[in-house]
Amino acid sequence: MNEKLHVPGFLAGGVSCGVKKNGAKDLALISCPSGATAAGVFTTNQVKAPPVLLARERARRAVARAIVANSGCANAFTGEKGMADARSVTQRVAEVLGVAEREVLPASTGVIGGPLAVADIGRAIPGLVAGLSPGGWQDAAEAIMTTDTHPKLASRWGRLPEGHIRIVGIAKGAGMIEPHMATLLVFLATNARVEAPLLREMLREACNASFNRITIDGCMSTNDSAIVLASGTACRGAIRKGSPSAARFSAMLLEVCRELAERVVADGEGATKTVKIRVGGGRSEKEACVAAYAVANSMLVKTAIGAADPNWGRIVQALGASRAKLNPERLLLRIGEASIVRRGCYAGEAEEEKARKVMRRPAYEIRIDLGMGRGESEVLTCDLTEEYVRINASYRS
Amino acid sequence: MNEKLHVPGFLAGGVSCGVKKNGAKDLALISCPSGATAAGVFTTNQVKAPPVLLARERARRAVARAIVANSGCANAFTGEKGMADARSVTQRVAEVLGVAEREVLPASTGVIGGPLAVADIGRAIPGLVAGLSPGGWQDAAEAIMTTDTHPKLASRWGRLPEGHIRIVGIAKGAGMIEPHMATLLVFLATNARVEAPLLREMLREACNASFNRITIDGCMSTNDSAIVLASGTACRGAIRKGSPSAARFSAMLLEVCRELAERVVADGEGATKTVKIRVGGGRSEKEACVAAYAVANSMLVKTAIGAADPNWGRIVQALGASRAKLNPERLLLRIGEASIVRRGCYAGEAEEEKARKVMRRPAYEIRIDLGMGRGESEVLTCDLTEEYVRINASYRS
Repeated sequence: MNEKLHVPGFLAGGVSCGVKKNGAKDLALISCPSGATAAGVFTTNQVKAPPVLLARERARRAVARAIVANSGCANAFTGEKGMADARSVTQRVAEVLGVAEREVLPASTGVIGGPLAVADIGRAIPGLVAGLSPGGWQDAAEAIMTTDTHPKLASRWGRLPEGHIRIVGIAKGAGMIEPHMATLLVFLATNARVEAPLLREMLREACNASFNRITIDGCMSTNDSAIVLASGTACRGAIRKGSPSAARFSAMLLEVCRELAERVVADGEGATKTVKIRVGGGRSEKEACVAAYAVANSMLVKTAIGAADPNWGRIVQALGASRAKLNPERLLLRIGEASIVRRGCYAGEAEEEKARKVMRRPAYEIRIDLGMGRGESEVLTCDLTEEYVRINASYRS
Repeated sequence: MNEKLHVPGFLAGGVSCGVKKNGAKDLALISCPSGATAAGVFTTNQVKAPPVLLARERARRAVARAIVANSGCANAFTGEKGMADARSVTQRVAEVLGVAEREVLPASTGVIGGPLAVADIGRAIPGLVAGLSPGGWQDAAEAIMTTDTHPKLASRWGRLPEGHIRIVGIAKGAGMIEPHMATLLVFLATNARVEAPLLREMLREACNASFNRITIDGCMSTNDSAIVLASGTACRGAIRKGSPSAARFSAMLLEVCRELAERVVADGEGATKTVKIRVGGGRSEKEACVAAYAVANSMLVKTAIGAADPNWGRIVQALGASRAKLNPERLLLRIGEASIVRRGCYAGEAEEEKARKVMRRPAYEIRIDLGMGRGESEVLTCDLTEEYVRINASYRS
């Protein structure tokens, strides 16, 4: 067992139950027998999947004891039957774990529109529960994968006055990724004791600075959910709002979220490169963010990134077409250490050649100054490759 | 000579001048020796190419006598030198044609950022002028192509009290296509006599209902320009605002623009299918349009279209993530004649199978009802294929 991937008081596991036709793991369970404070942020898509609605409602309650998540089927746009199915899965988990149904939070990810294979899931739950272990996070992370090529885990440890705090997180990503005030699927567990309102605030802040600043294809899922469970078991006291411990715990939570978010982008469908788009000089932070997303989601920019082609005209085009105001005469554009555009002027082929070298790296930054003000923001994106099209042309078939 | 591609009073032509490295035609000229009323609509990208700024200024004047357009280089984001280059090209054309420089409107399309090969263009102008002919529209249409696989021409004839009216139009498209209040490159010529304000109004309306309702990759170019020249030569009088002739002429102009717009989408980079996204039931026309663009620009929807996969969950996802309000319980979704979602409920596999057959056609409609009101709109889109990525990964290299 990897000691880093272990939070006292939590058990995790993942098995194959048959929702995915290829026999891969597709059912994950995280259990906190002593009960945990829960906080969640969920998709802002107007079409919210039944498991999202149920998890959101239950995350507001005082105590949660489990998260059950399946991949292979999103149970989205499935109406009343979808809600009954989500309830039925959590009810079965509750029975086997011996907890209350309302203490079990559901999540689903996969194809939108098809019905959940409730019977298959139900049959797998006893075995899943029997196999739960403190070191089962790897299996759980595998079981929530869809087109991800590898599981995503991250953890942090810290020694606070309130105790030795640990945070473990798992996430899945790969496609339909442009979270807004929510994310893909992310489950976080900590042994810290944090009251629900503070935990919610911290989770929201961490998501805003991590999962809400990434994009793979500009598509926001119907099932995005990020949930943190805080057991409080290892603590000598609660972490109080405004305390130095709250600041440290927030920073740890953000680090785990950022690490997971970066892994999600690096493993984007067909992606071979991870590029941070940093925009400064906006009239406001919001406009800088709009400009960053305009570049990060441009199919032409993303294709150029994939080809390691410093086709900076496409970046200028994307900026100019965005709702963010820019001053063409003061525009700055850097690709890694290459200054392609300085004060609105193209810097010449030598810089472009330098940029071409930067673009062959697996990860780098594109820095932009809009020349309007002091607003700053950044977004993490990946390249668009033929492989993305291949994956999504065959994903359901 | 194709008689349909001929407007009395206009000459056209296209040659290879060396801007494109492969020897393809890259310089087009349209000439109206007797002078024409001009109207234009241009890109709303904040970064406007020098030829766009110059053409916009000159289109406001009373008389235009020529349009000169090169492909292979957009002369965009080239600052003062770019403006001097655009002027120099129009000056040379004016000299050889024997007209005033301000009567020549420039346009450029191609890669953003590089300098215009003014000397090459200048050397080619005398030969281009010498070869102008009434039937030269095909050559002109070829000379404005970038990644287009074929030239795009359309024409209409009509017998009006004011004379036998003809309209010929040429366009180029292929990539960086999501026009807003403007288009790719479109040049239209007519022998009708129409005062400039009315001509502008008619062009704007025609563009709004044609070029401004298409998308290939959601990217708005820095060089979009649509220009119409009306010579008035074949007319027994001017077409007056509000007259039946104005309505008929407007309809003809719209038909030419729609036909060109449809050809542009059908020839989108890597595209194999043309799909009209028709949205009804919006709270307003604007929201219906927002919803239509959300579906039309979704990379996941476009990939599913390419694979002929009725993955309707992706359409629901795109609608739900858009700013257009929808009622999930009243949502309708049809792919061709297949009713996939009725009043918010999935209609089953038989309808999905029907949709799969529709999606194998080269062109079809996706109809959506948001269930909120009476707002309607439509957008024409194409599929996303591996070929799009291949083209744009190698376009500059």
